[in-house]
Amino acid sequence: MAGRTREDKLELIAQKIKHFPDFPSKGILFRDICPILKDPEALTAVTDLFEERVREAYPRVQLIVGLDARGFLFGPLLAQRLGVGFVLVRKKGKLPGPTTSVAYTLEYGKAEAEIQEDAVEAGQKVVLIDDLLATGGTLYAACELMKKQKAEVLGCMVVIELKDLNGAGRVQPESVFSLVQY
Amino acid sequence: MAGRTREDKLELIAQKIKHFPDFPSKGILFRDICPILKDPEALTAVTDLFEERVREAYPRVQLIVGLDARGFLFGPLLAQRLGVGFVLVRKKGKLPGPTTSVAYTLEYGKAEAEIQEDAVEAGQKVVLIDDLLATGGTLYAACELMKKQKAEVLGCMVVIELKDLNGAGRVQPESVFSLVQY
Repeated sequence: MAGRTREDKLELIAQKIKHFPDFPSKGILFRDICPILKDPEALTAVTDLFEERVREAYPRVQLIVGLDARGFLFGPLLAQRLGVGFVLVRKKGKLPGPTTSVAYTLEYGKAEAEIQEDAVEAGQKVVLIDDLLATGGTLYAACELMKKQKAEVLGCMVVIELKDLNGAGRVQPESVFSLVQY
Repeated sequence: MAGRTREDKLELIAQKIKHFPDFPSKGILFRDICPILKDPEALTAVTDLFEERVREAYPRVQLIVGLDARGFLFGPLLAQRLGVGFVLVRKKGKLPGPTTSVAYTLEYGKAEAEIQEDAVEAGQKVVLIDDLLATGGTLYAACELMKKQKAEVLGCMVVIELKDLNGAGRVQPESVFSLVQY
């Protein structure tokens, strides 16, 4: 990847994303990130650009918090690059021990996001990560979970942002950084 | 991590795993890998040991195949170390486009595992990865999916193996490599 510019990397990532109309239900245009994972250079490019953003904008980050399940694909890679820990926000019922949860609505359905109470401490500086920002329900719930834990959200990062659905508005005042926008 | 022996790394990983009785249901002793993710050195140790195993035992690997959802935490890290792609096996209904699926029973419930038809090609050499091997239902289904795709499974790798449940027997003739055994 040495010698590849930021623009080269963004182009490689955008080229890999596949588009599936009417999935998972009629009227939804699904953006598929699986081909990014299958191409080691594209996955390195995503991690490079996320790392660059964190080092520039959130250098004090102490934890990367990733959203179930596709945030798990990108979050640990970024956390390892930065030398910080990775924490899981999961769908309700998946995490053992004392947990806190927040209910939310999402693009196609309802759900509840959960975190282990001891996963994030008061005052810790965190960056949230997921694959895609649509209506922002999951990310909003994750930000609320961080508030409950009295953690400081430095920002949110996603590979893909669907601008028309204004998920960034729902997550305000937290900022959202995305690599590819539609 | 330089200077840390294999034994040091295994000990660090084992120390991080937490144990929760009666989760998610009565009689189940849940082994929690979340603290491994939260400790960057422990997560590096897991990736180091997986990488070492692949370079020794499966040097011809072409793809890492990870199981939904906790296989997603470890698989992309390993794939990036090896310079190969990562492919997702998901719970049914999550993947767009033409898919193949296999039904299976698991430790607490039933499910169906699915893969995109174009994710793995005939003859490709793959290593499967997940966080934990219990009764082996998910891993068995993933192996069956690979057979359907005519891919060659070189081996399976998990962080934790629950020996009493004999998941390795269910996955035979594929071999299972684990870091921590109970």
